[in-house]
Amino acid sequence: MSEIRISVKGMSCGHCVAAVEKALKDQEGVDSVSVSLEEAEALVSGSPDRQALLDAIVEEGYEAELIS
Amino acid sequence: MSEIRISVKGMSCGHCVAAVEKALKDQEGVDSVSVSLEEAEALVSGSPDRQALLDAIVEEGYEAELIS
Repeated sequence: MSEIRISVKGMSCGHCVAAVEKALKDQEGVDSVSVSLEEAEALVSGSPDRQALLDAIVEEGYEAELIS
Repeated sequence: MSEIRISVKGMSCGHCVAAVEKALKDQEGVDSVSVSLEEAEALVSGSPDRQALLDAIVEEGYEAELIS
């Protein structure tokens, strides 16, 4: 169980935030997700595969980079 | 049957375009809808109530103004 911080570039509105949130919540091992448009970041709690999280964001059309 | 042109302000991405398209397609009397992010416009074919179209766009969170 850990908190994962991901930089998400390219989100422009609440729909983008919702799309990234859904994509992350759908990943195995994810307990909770919080996405901020202003900070261009996603916070994920749980024990998911980090690469799967990044891939899911990229699949939605955004740039993703692991911060911590 | 006519073509209605509406200025739509506030769309920032493809999700916004999809939300406006769906909102317009759901209106009675609408045959087809085309929304352009670049031109910030919606083109609607059919015989819908014009005010209902504007209201539907505003309800999605955007500014709408009848052009023609």
